[in-house]
Amino acid sequence: MIIVPEREIADLVSAADCFVAIERVFASMASKSAYNFPVVREAIGHADALYGFKSGFDRESLALGLKSGGFWPRNGERGLTNHQSTVFLFDADSGRCRAVVGGNLLTALRTAAASAISIKYLARSDAKILGMIGAGHQSTFQLKAALDQRAFEKVVGWNIDPGALGRLAAVAAERGIPFEAVDLDRLGAEADVIITITSSFAPILKASQVRPGTHLACMGTDTRGKQEVETELVAAATVFTDEIAQSVEIGEAQHARAAGLLSASDITEIGSVINGSHPGRRTADEVTLFDGTGVGLQDLAVASVAVELAVSKGVAIDVNF
Amino acid sequence: MIIVPEREIADLVSAADCFVAIERVFASMASKSAYNFPVVREAIGHADALYGFKSGFDRESLALGLKSGGFWPRNGERGLTNHQSTVFLFDADSGRCRAVVGGNLLTALRTAAASAISIKYLARSDAKILGMIGAGHQSTFQLKAALDQRAFEKVVGWNIDPGALGRLAAVAAERGIPFEAVDLDRLGAEADVIITITSSFAPILKASQVRPGTHLACMGTDTRGKQEVETELVAAATVFTDEIAQSVEIGEAQHARAAGLLSASDITEIGSVINGSHPGRRTADEVTLFDGTGVGLQDLAVASVAVELAVSKGVAIDVNF
Repeated sequence: MIIVPEREIADLVSAADCFVAIERVFASMASKSAYNFPVVREAIGHADALYGFKSGFDRESLALGLKSGGFWPRNGERGLTNHQSTVFLFDADSGRCRAVVGGNLLTALRTAAASAISIKYLARSDAKILGMIGAGHQSTFQLKAALDQRAFEKVVGWNIDPGALGRLAAVAAERGIPFEAVDLDRLGAEADVIITITSSFAPILKASQVRPGTHLACMGTDTRGKQEVETELVAAATVFTDEIAQSVEIGEAQHARAAGLLSASDITEIGSVINGSHPGRRTADEVTLFDGTGVGLQDLAVASVAVELAVSKGVAIDVNF
Repeated sequence: MIIVPEREIADLVSAADCFVAIERVFASMASKSAYNFPVVREAIGHADALYGFKSGFDRESLALGLKSGGFWPRNGERGLTNHQSTVFLFDADSGRCRAVVGGNLLTALRTAAASAISIKYLARSDAKILGMIGAGHQSTFQLKAALDQRAFEKVVGWNIDPGALGRLAAVAAERGIPFEAVDLDRLGAEADVIITITSSFAPILKASQVRPGTHLACMGTDTRGKQEVETELVAAATVFTDEIAQSVEIGEAQHARAAGLLSASDITEIGSVINGSHPGRRTADEVTLFDGTGVGLQDLAVASVAVELAVSKGVAIDVNF
C-alpha cells in the first residue's frame, strides 16, 4: 500500500497536472465511463463537524475509491486546517486498498482545475478581464488556474470583507497583472469571466449586474441552501456543470430548479463539451454558467496522479499491508 | 497515522475482544449515542465486483470512520480473499485520518460476535443443542463464538453441499462436542439455538420445522432479495436486530415487512436488551429471532480494538502522514 503524505503534495502535483486529470475524468463522466456513488454527508454531533465521503469509479482509468473528510470548524484554534481530507484508492481488479493520499491541497487544486476547465471551454476567446467574487483561502487557487486560460489583462475583485482582497492582488501581481478592488456593479460591468468562490447563503451577484457574453464559474455552492448568484441569472444563462444530479440538488442550480425556472434537462455536463458532443458557447452574447459542485471522481483523479508521481519520484511510502 | 496490516489481526484480536466491543457498540446504538451513516453499495461494472462503504460515529467511544470494501468474485483464482475490507478510523476531534486497519478477519469476527451476543441475551439459559445452517468460510467463526455462550452438548448441521460440513465438525471436535449432519426437519426438531449463515435467495428453514422456545440468529441476509428462513417464521417470532432500518430493508425481516406481516415497530434493537431497557426473551416457549444485518459501527469498534492492541504490543506501523 502506497502512502503519499499531505506534506509531499505541493512539490509533486502541479495545477497543470490537475487540469489534465480533471479534464479527462469530466470527459469520462459525460461518456458514462465514470460515475460518482451517492454522497454521504453527516453532521456528526461532535466538535461541530460535518463529515462524509465522496466516491466513485472510472472504468477508463480504473480509479476506484473515495475521499473521506469534512469540516472541523475549531481546527484553526489548534493550528490545523479546518477542511480535512484523505483520499483512499483501491485496486479495481481485487478490491485491495492501493493508496492513502493526503487530500487537503489536492481538494483545492481539483476545485481550481474545474473552474479553469470551464473557462477554457466556455469563456469567449477574447476575454480580457477576470472578476473574482470571494477572497478566502480557496480563491487564490481558482485565480491562479484561471489566469492560464485566457490572455487576461486585469483582475477585478470583490469580497464581503475587502481586507482579504490582498490575497488576490498578490496572485495577480506575481503574474504581472493589475488588480483592482471594485463594487459588484463595476465587477459585473467590466468582467468577461467571473468566478464566485464564497460560502454565501444569499445571492451576491444580480442578473442585472452581468453583461451579455459573460462566463460565470460558480464554485462555492455545494450544500442545500447555499447561493452565490441571483436565481434569475442562472435561469437566463446556458448552464453547464460537473454532475447534473448534484447541480440541481446542492449546486447553484438548486434555486432555479426549485423555482421552476430550470430543469435538469436544461443543464449540460461540461464533459460533453470536452468530448465535443456539445458545442459549448454558441454565441458571443450568451451568458454561460458553470455550476461546479465538486465530485468524488475529481478527487480520485488527482490522487491517482499524486500516487504515480510519488512513486516515480521516490517519495511514496510503501507499507506492506 | 497507524497502520495495522491484515496479517497482524489474527494474533492481536480475539473473539472475546470482539464480543465485548460489539456488545458495547450495540448498546450505544440503542441509547442513540452511536449511529450508522447511509450505506453505499455499488455494482461497479468491472470484475463483477460489488463495492461500497459502511460508516458511522460512536459518540461514546469517539470511533469515527468507515469500512470500505466489497466482493470480488474472481479473487479466488489469484489466491486472494473474495471479500476485501479495509477499515479507516478518523480522529473525531480533528477529522484527520488516524488509522488504516486490515478488515477481512475483523469482519468475520464482528459478524460472529453479533450472533453470539444474540445467544447470550435471547437463547434459553438451558439450551443444549446448537443447529448450524450453512457451512461456508464464515460458519466456523459463528460456531466458535456461539459455543462460548451456553453449555452446548451437541452441534447439528445442515448445508446445501453436505461435503462442507466437515468444517463445522472440526470446530466442534476441537471443543470436544459431538457433531452430526442432519436434515432440516431434525435440525429444527432438536436445536435450541439455530444460526443461519448462508447466501441463500430462497427460504431454507420452514416455520413448521422450528419448535417453541428456539432462538434463531439469521446472519446471512444482507441484501435485498436474500432470504434464509420462511417469512411466516419471522412473522411469528419476537424479532431483534442490530439496526432496525437495515433489518426491514436488506435483512431477514425484509420479506415479512413486504408481506405486511411485520413492521419496523415490531422489531427491537438488541442493544435495548443489552442496556436492560427491553427484557429480551419473555417466556420459555417464545421463538426469538435475531436479524443480523451487519453495520459499520461494528467494524469501527473492532478496528479500534485492533489499533489499541497493535500499539500496546508494538506491532502497529506508525507513518508520519
